[in-house]
Amino acid sequence: MASIIVPDHFSAVEDAEVLRKACQGWGTDEKALIAVLAHRNAVQRKQIRQAYEELYHEDLIKRLESELSGDFEKAVYRWILDPADRYAVLANVAIRKGVPDYHVIVEIACVLSPEELLEVRKAYKLRYKHSLEEDVAAHTSGDIRKLLVGLVSAYRYEGDEINARLAASEAEILQNAIKDKAFNHEEVIRILSTRSKLQLIATFNRYRDDQVTSITKNLLGEEGNEFTKVVRTAIRCINDPKKYFEKVLRNAIKRVGTDEDALTRVIVMRAEKDLKEIKEQYYKRNSVPLDQAVAKDTSGDYKAFLLALLGKE
Amino acid sequence: MASIIVPDHFSAVEDAEVLRKACQGWGTDEKALIAVLAHRNAVQRKQIRQAYEELYHEDLIKRLESELSGDFEKAVYRWILDPADRYAVLANVAIRKGVPDYHVIVEIACVLSPEELLEVRKAYKLRYKHSLEEDVAAHTSGDIRKLLVGLVSAYRYEGDEINARLAASEAEILQNAIKDKAFNHEEVIRILSTRSKLQLIATFNRYRDDQVTSITKNLLGEEGNEFTKVVRTAIRCINDPKKYFEKVLRNAIKRVGTDEDALTRVIVMRAEKDLKEIKEQYYKRNSVPLDQAVAKDTSGDYKAFLLALLGKE
Repeated sequence: MASIIVPDHFSAVEDAEVLRKACQGWGTDEKALIAVLAHRNAVQRKQIRQAYEELYHEDLIKRLESELSGDFEKAVYRWILDPADRYAVLANVAIRKGVPDYHVIVEIACVLSPEELLEVRKAYKLRYKHSLEEDVAAHTSGDIRKLLVGLVSAYRYEGDEINARLAASEAEILQNAIKDKAFNHEEVIRILSTRSKLQLIATFNRYRDDQVTSITKNLLGEEGNEFTKVVRTAIRCINDPKKYFEKVLRNAIKRVGTDEDALTRVIVMRAEKDLKEIKEQYYKRNSVPLDQAVAKDTSGDYKAFLLALLGKE
Repeated sequence: MASIIVPDHFSAVEDAEVLRKACQGWGTDEKALIAVLAHRNAVQRKQIRQAYEELYHEDLIKRLESELSGDFEKAVYRWILDPADRYAVLANVAIRKGVPDYHVIVEIACVLSPEELLEVRKAYKLRYKHSLEEDVAAHTSGDIRKLLVGLVSAYRYEGDEINARLAASEAEILQNAIKDKAFNHEEVIRILSTRSKLQLIATFNRYRDDQVTSITKNLLGEEGNEFTKVVRTAIRCINDPKKYFEKVLRNAIKRVGTDEDALTRVIVMRAEKDLKEIKEQYYKRNSVPLDQAVAKDTSGDYKAFLLALLGKE
């Protein structure tokens, strides 16, 4: 379930007027911005952007970019975009880093539904005049490239048909690949990048039944290997995205010097999806409420904005 | 341009009535079937199927399958399906052969537009409860698998931005790969399966400028190698589909014992697209009109149907 609180009454025009006022004159009224933006869902935010454009002949996103700065600006920018556009931007930022942030690319490819991923690929082409897989392929190499290109290009079957025999045989392929330390095995890439998520979960379950430990635990011994880490992220994103995101948040907060990019990314990505459950998992695992942990590690408007997305009244 | 002749007057209900009558009683009135079906475009054929279903509570496609047989049945079946469904069926038939028919898979992946290919992937999932790339990957192996999975999973950029510098550098990569006989080079697969078609055509042109001969000619020396053949088909389908299809038709007809599957496939695939130009190319290359050549090599209702699709009044 979503964590954001959306009031019953909504008027795109009224919101646009509030935002305009908040951006005018000396300084910006960040509190007013947060009070509106952090409490509107994706459809409403889109309507507000349209109403703002019609009323003031100005692009709200560009205006906000010029008004805000730092982590707060980044968070607002990622939040206000249509989800497909947001993921296109996140993917592009991840790809263009000196060393691409493989894990963000895997997150987008493996957590989103096949239809959502397709929308991201459309948005990416429109925005960057390249296909997503084209840019991923051009900025990566070797086995990681093979895996990433396969994952972002996938358009998986979404129905509920599971083939138990296939799960058993492919669990065995994975077992042999891990035993032989052949993590770059092409069959591993094929299985992870083409099978449906339900089929893969059946395969991972079968793996655990046969091996007593889970496949992600078995991959842990290989932490030095970057490819293995990417495989592990893919498996975790497919197997249990909530658990995966809880850990990303935990690591982002526990680190010396908070990882604001990861914090922003997960909260913005999941606030309209399942951040409520992720908060519960976080509390269960850390014995500290997530909003408390976030409040301790952040400050100012950025903090206020994240807490609002986390469901603060 | 399309080769089929579609009359101005159209009524889905009238057509459904004619088809019903043609299927009733002793035997089937194939002439009446051809007179209707071969002269209706995809939208009209869909409306006829719907009208038939509403009027007679029967699936027209199933009825036709039970009435017809042999090459004629196959041709009518492929023709009457929605294009996306037709390609899904063609791809599935090609995949499930003892040795998959790689070239048909490449044709579908490289000749269709990115949006059309996406529709095929949707239709494929709906029909076969697997993704297209999943079945391709499960039935192929090695370098051919890498290339085919890349080609069918591509969702290429379709805009007209071309990067000339990139064309030059990637033409060089292709040159080196061919010189070193490293046709399975991963870079070749990356380039062919991710770049936009216009970008690739610029790359192939640059190749010809630098090397005097075309890349497809340079690949000819390697005919024994199956992977090279598949690469060549992909390049030809991207570079000049009409020329490619002319040659498929030429080979299908010239062979001892006509290749009816190829003949049907090309005529059905292109009758609403560019079969008129393919006919012109065929005549220019062979000094025999295509319909004459087809008439010589086929017979009966199958012949009458193909000729109608080729534009016979």
